[in-house]
Amino acid sequence: MAPKPLNIGMIGYGFMGRAHTNGYKRVNDFFDLPYRPVLKAVCARDEAKAKAFAEQWGYESIETDWKKLLARKDIDAVDICTPNNLHKEISIAAAQAGKMILCEKPLAMNTAEGEEMCAAVEKAGVANIVWYNYRRIPAVTYAKQIIDSGKLGRIFHYRANFLQDWTINADLPQGGAALWRLDAAAAGSGVTGDLLAHCIDTALWLNGSISDVTAMTETFIKERKHQLTGKSEKVTIDDACAFLCHFANGSLGLFESTRYARGHKALYTFEVNGENGSLKWDLHDLHRLQWFDYRVEGPLRGWASIHVTDGDHPYMGKWWVPGLAIGYEHSFVHQVKDFLEGLGSGKPAGPTFRDALETQKVCDAVLDSAKSGSWKKV
Amino acid sequence: MAPKPLNIGMIGYGFMGRAHTNGYKRVNDFFDLPYRPVLKAVCARDEAKAKAFAEQWGYESIETDWKKLLARKDIDAVDICTPNNLHKEISIAAAQAGKMILCEKPLAMNTAEGEEMCAAVEKAGVANIVWYNYRRIPAVTYAKQIIDSGKLGRIFHYRANFLQDWTINADLPQGGAALWRLDAAAAGSGVTGDLLAHCIDTALWLNGSISDVTAMTETFIKERKHQLTGKSEKVTIDDACAFLCHFANGSLGLFESTRYARGHKALYTFEVNGENGSLKWDLHDLHRLQWFDYRVEGPLRGWASIHVTDGDHPYMGKWWVPGLAIGYEHSFVHQVKDFLEGLGSGKPAGPTFRDALETQKVCDAVLDSAKSGSWKKV
Amino acid sequence: MAPKPLNIGMIGYGFMGRAHTNGYKRVNDFFDLPYRPVLKAVCARDEAKAKAFAEQWGYESIETDWKKLLARKDIDAVDICTPNNLHKEISIAAAQAGKMILCEKPLAMNTAEGEEMCAAVEKAGVANIVWYNYRRIPAVTYAKQIIDSGKLGRIFHYRANFLQDWTINADLPQGGAALWRLDAAAAGSGVTGDLLAHCIDTALWLNGSISDVTAMTETFIKERKHQLTGKSEKVTIDDACAFLCHFANGSLGLFESTRYARGHKALYTFEVNGENGSLKWDLHDLHRLQWFDYRVEGPLRGWASIHVTDGDHPYMGKWWVPGLAIGYEHSFVHQVKDFLEGLGSGKPAGPTFRDALETQKVCDAVLDSAKSGSWKKV
Amino acid sequence: MAPKPLNIGMIGYGFMGRAHTNGYKRVNDFFDLPYRPVLKAVCARDEAKAKAFAEQWGYESIETDWKKLLARKDIDAVDICTPNNLHKEISIAAAQAGKMILCEKPLAMNTAEGEEMCAAVEKAGVANIVWYNYRRIPAVTYAKQIIDSGKLGRIFHYRANFLQDWTINADLPQGGAALWRLDAAAAGSGVTGDLLAHCIDTALWLNGSISDVTAMTETFIKERKHQLTGKSEKVTIDDACAFLCHFANGSLGLFESTRYARGHKALYTFEVNGENGSLKWDLHDLHRLQWFDYRVEGPLRGWASIHVTDGDHPYMGKWWVPGLAIGYEHSFVHQVKDFLEGLGSGKPAGPTFRDALETQKVCDAVLDSAKSGSWKKV
Repeated sequence: MAPKPLNIGMIGYGFMGRAHTNGYKRVNDFFDLPYRPVLKAVCARDEAKAKAFAEQWGYESIETDWKKLLARKDIDAVDICTPNNLHKEISIAAAQAGKMILCEKPLAMNTAEGEEMCAAVEKAGVANIVWYNYRRIPAVTYAKQIIDSGKLGRIFHYRANFLQDWTINADLPQGGAALWRLDAAAAGSGVTGDLLAHCIDTALWLNGSISDVTAMTETFIKERKHQLTGKSEKVTIDDACAFLCHFANGSLGLFESTRYARGHKALYTFEVNGENGSLKWDLHDLHRLQWFDYRVEGPLRGWASIHVTDGDHPYMGKWWVPGLAIGYEHSFVHQVKDFLEGLGSGKPAGPTFRDALETQKVCDAVLDSAKSGSWKKV
Repeated sequence: MAPKPLNIGMIGYGFMGRAHTNGYKRVNDFFDLPYRPVLKAVCARDEAKAKAFAEQWGYESIETDWKKLLARKDIDAVDICTPNNLHKEISIAAAQAGKMILCEKPLAMNTAEGEEMCAAVEKAGVANIVWYNYRRIPAVTYAKQIIDSGKLGRIFHYRANFLQDWTINADLPQGGAALWRLDAAAAGSGVTGDLLAHCIDTALWLNGSISDVTAMTETFIKERKHQLTGKSEKVTIDDACAFLCHFANGSLGLFESTRYARGHKALYTFEVNGENGSLKWDLHDLHRLQWFDYRVEGPLRGWASIHVTDGDHPYMGKWWVPGLAIGYEHSFVHQVKDFLEGLGSGKPAGPTFRDALETQKVCDAVLDSAKSGSWKKV
Repeated sequence: MAPKPLNIGMIGYGFMGRAHTNGYKRVNDFFDLPYRPVLKAVCARDEAKAKAFAEQWGYESIETDWKKLLARKDIDAVDICTPNNLHKEISIAAAQAGKMILCEKPLAMNTAEGEEMCAAVEKAGVANIVWYNYRRIPAVTYAKQIIDSGKLGRIFHYRANFLQDWTINADLPQGGAALWRLDAAAAGSGVTGDLLAHCIDTALWLNGSISDVTAMTETFIKERKHQLTGKSEKVTIDDACAFLCHFANGSLGLFESTRYARGHKALYTFEVNGENGSLKWDLHDLHRLQWFDYRVEGPLRGWASIHVTDGDHPYMGKWWVPGLAIGYEHSFVHQVKDFLEGLGSGKPAGPTFRDALETQKVCDAVLDSAKSGSWKKV
Repeated sequence: MAPKPLNIGMIGYGFMGRAHTNGYKRVNDFFDLPYRPVLKAVCARDEAKAKAFAEQWGYESIETDWKKLLARKDIDAVDICTPNNLHKEISIAAAQAGKMILCEKPLAMNTAEGEEMCAAVEKAGVANIVWYNYRRIPAVTYAKQIIDSGKLGRIFHYRANFLQDWTINADLPQGGAALWRLDAAAAGSGVTGDLLAHCIDTALWLNGSISDVTAMTETFIKERKHQLTGKSEKVTIDDACAFLCHFANGSLGLFESTRYARGHKALYTFEVNGENGSLKWDLHDLHRLQWFDYRVEGPLRGWASIHVTDGDHPYMGKWWVPGLAIGYEHSFVHQVKDFLEGLGSGKPAGPTFRDALETQKVCDAVLDSAKSGSWKKV
């Protein structure tokens, strides 16, 4: 049966606007689904940029005011790719307009905003999801399956970090279109909301809830020129953040992120150590999962590098043939796939706004702890 | 300026039909080009399969006879994804019909066929290219740039292999739709034309022509059930092939491919050793290039693992951000991009039929040498 | 000129007794030195074991009372390989007896003990060193040279961990000869003094002093049979410990150690991220140093894996030829070499007792922080 | 019971003289054995060098004429570390003098010499062994055990190479004390006897005999100054050699060695592909064995990196603790251990002269094939 159209209204046209759009366009070429996304409209304040984006990607129309987009009857679902400080307002309005919502991470500027947003989507009963896309890297999804199978036994340790190096240059300005992530007014926080939020989402998904944290943050470059004012201004985001924590299952956690780790472009890694096995993954070699299986006979034990490209690995049966890797962008294709299947089956794909709120709470506890210098309960 | 439409007629709907189609569909989302491929028609003998493919991928129409496809005025370019034994006939007819041709590799069943095909396309003056896609993996393209820059100096060694393990099971049948690659009547040869041809194409591109070869082939499983006859029949392809050679530049070559290397799914690797530097690459970690630079001060020298995901790496400026990998399929997107740019600029992208004929000649010399047990000139 | 004899009295015969003795026996075969260690006596309470050890390794005599050993005129230097709770008493007595001291790490049970020991050796004016042997792995020594050369520029991050998995089995007993490291009465602490102490020593050496810490510890298995009493007793050591810290140079630190990381035997790793370069090392591949050099032209940048086996790498000119690795035990040979050279030159090799006291202070702050749940100044 | 002394007479004092001597000196510290090697005498034509070596390593006496050494009654075993062109004469004389012989590899200049040597030692009934030391790297020994257990099933492929880069510099002279390996008159051949001989010995041990070969050799630098004559002379060794072969078990072999592979210091690697599993090893990370086990459940399959440092790995129970690597030199310690145990048990450790003769035959066939350009039977 032919899939039903699902009309998408995209708000934003940056890096994430491209990544999500690519997901919508490609998903039906590879997966059999109940819905087919239609690129109905893209919305941006700058009309020329909206037009250019629409033309490049094939959106049927543009809007320059997101409220008008929400008012359109031909939009089924809204995708929010704006800076973080607009997530709340748009989400709540979209929910009230009865639109499904696919919101870029982090959910909100803080937990309080997130609570309001959850209330709004749940009251409206609209489908909602947050783009913590790394859950859908096949190797990560497979890690989840291995853990859920019980193969690791009791978990002792979870560690994750997200290391980048793109803001080391002191001449890099802050704020404005391309660099709003360096401006706390637009982003809420620095690496905590941008990078650690990914690590935390995966951790909660793989290893359950976090009880308490002790954290430190640092801003290495204290002042940068602001792109909007043209003046040197105080940098208000965290350049780096690390925290220790306890998980509810008794395991210990260690998290770190920074944009000052020279040599690492986007090195998101995690490792889980259990009684009977361990798992490691990193984004720079995203198609591999490292697996140590204690059940193997003694002298043959070793870390196995699983090349997650076989037909029996998550999502991979629909792509190419064994040995041929897919990439970063496919995590978005998979998120669209799961979202559409969730619509069809009535079992919504996560992380929902409610799921993503848990990550927000950990982020808030981390920032609180860093400020106060003491352990904080989540 | 909006790109001009280029109407594609696809012949075949298998693995390569999907890979090429994906290239056509995606290229304009990421690259600014003079042409935009239009999925005009797909052709397959089995009407139901043609329809299903057209629906899945968005082809506007279908044909069940490739001659009818060639007769259509609304087709600009023909993409040949059939088994190898049809490449010649279709190519020559397409050239005579004035169609551009994008032909799957290897070019032909043998050199003689290839010569005829080259003559046909050159007489007709139609654009032509062969899908040796690995040239367009960014790390491979970058290797080419490094070599061409002269950084390696005099070349001493080139080695490549392509290792798979999918035919070890003796119960695997041969022939028919999915397994024609195991049937010499359809494929011409086994791993030589299927896998070594890739290694040879890259080698000729990176290191120049090959002068002579000594080779051995082996067929490990002597009989397999044929899918079309249902009977156990002699296996006529080479399961494995290895050869030594001299390059015209004085360097030594070592090539091997097999489908019996347990643990390797699609491990295509090459390495070049020069006076002042060396390069290594493999398809299982296709986003990395290993580079040894002798110019580095002594004790700091080491093999650098270049994560080929930066904006200044070939093709990568148009994809995501540093650290975020693309995959196998993108090599086809890049080939379409280069082909379309070549149409615009009048400087045709390679490998043309004529270029691919060189690979065919080496393959023939290899198979001759294996049969005769002596060195063969190319 | 022939090296002068230096008579060694070894106290203890366990793992470290073997490692140190091996260092004494081998050093003059490879290095030209002012002294030649002579295996004069080994001391152990169990006479049979002392005899067996002396016979195996070639000690000339035995003692069963360390006080008698210290009283011997023919002993120049005492090597203390006892459990940690004896380091203080023996060291102070040895200093008073005018013996040089080579003491196994950690220096002491705590900072207070360490202060007394420093006072004693400094008052007596005897040569003293602590066996933080990892400084003398060639790749680690080379890391120190690279950092000291200024190639990394401003340092932003330092992270280290030491992961093992040998105590996961709940049936493993605690205490007694082989397992005193699991008994806080003999060891002082668990992984903090045993493993983190190594990480801290290296960190202080490479990156300078640590200002303050926040830590957590955990004991996963709460009770174990004690080998001496035969009864199940509370486990009093820390099975795992992690801490965050600030270094005096403004960089951030992250440290972790555990004996519950399934799949890791002795994975001591560290990484330093500076403005212009980064370094990584791990004990499982101890002959390699990972080096990222930002000075390299953009697209060629990558982590270089330096195979630290060349003649111009630290210590390596005296071993074999490039490409041929040495191992763990050689770090002790190198420590003996440097100690003996220090005796000759009058510039004592570190870490001296005073140097090792700094590590002790950090360990104490870490354990205090874990107990109190708050940041502690060192 | 105390081990019996075994008096060693060493002929030569170069790299191998050091490596073997180190083996003799250390073996009893770690292994319980029926014999204890005694460093009785070292023999070298240059008296000063012999003295210096004796002093450094602790030999009791020196000789400057190997015939005098052989005449001494207090010598039980002779170790031959001379250039290859002296192996035959000394071996035969030593056998006639009733000495055990430990001969550096390759056994001889060619097969004919090797036959005479075998005849001599067998007639004399003296213990004999050849220093193909790589068999005794624990990871290699363990590979042998895995293969012998049948875990790989039918073998399809064996490939090995030995890549170095130390002779690329055209100014490097040939001949004389340090560089006799570049002089065919002293060495017999270039990389074939020096490097490929190692690869072949391991291959025969792991995968059985070789039936026939086709080979090519190359001399990249045609003339070099000779150290003894001071004149530029033709280079007569092979700088590089590669060959294809069939093993008697039906598997295919691929071998290569060179001293012109920039970036590789001593990269000896081998890989075996069997029906049910594959193994890979390389000398640059000699403590690791890569193992692919097809019996593992599908999606969990991957290449396992076995860190061969556990107590249940070959030889490792006598060294340190899991995770702590040993190095290159230990292969010689292990060879001494096995040789001494063989003396005690009456089951001689290999490779004996007779075993090593098989390697010589393959080397000769390889060189013959390269010269004639045709396949040669071994």
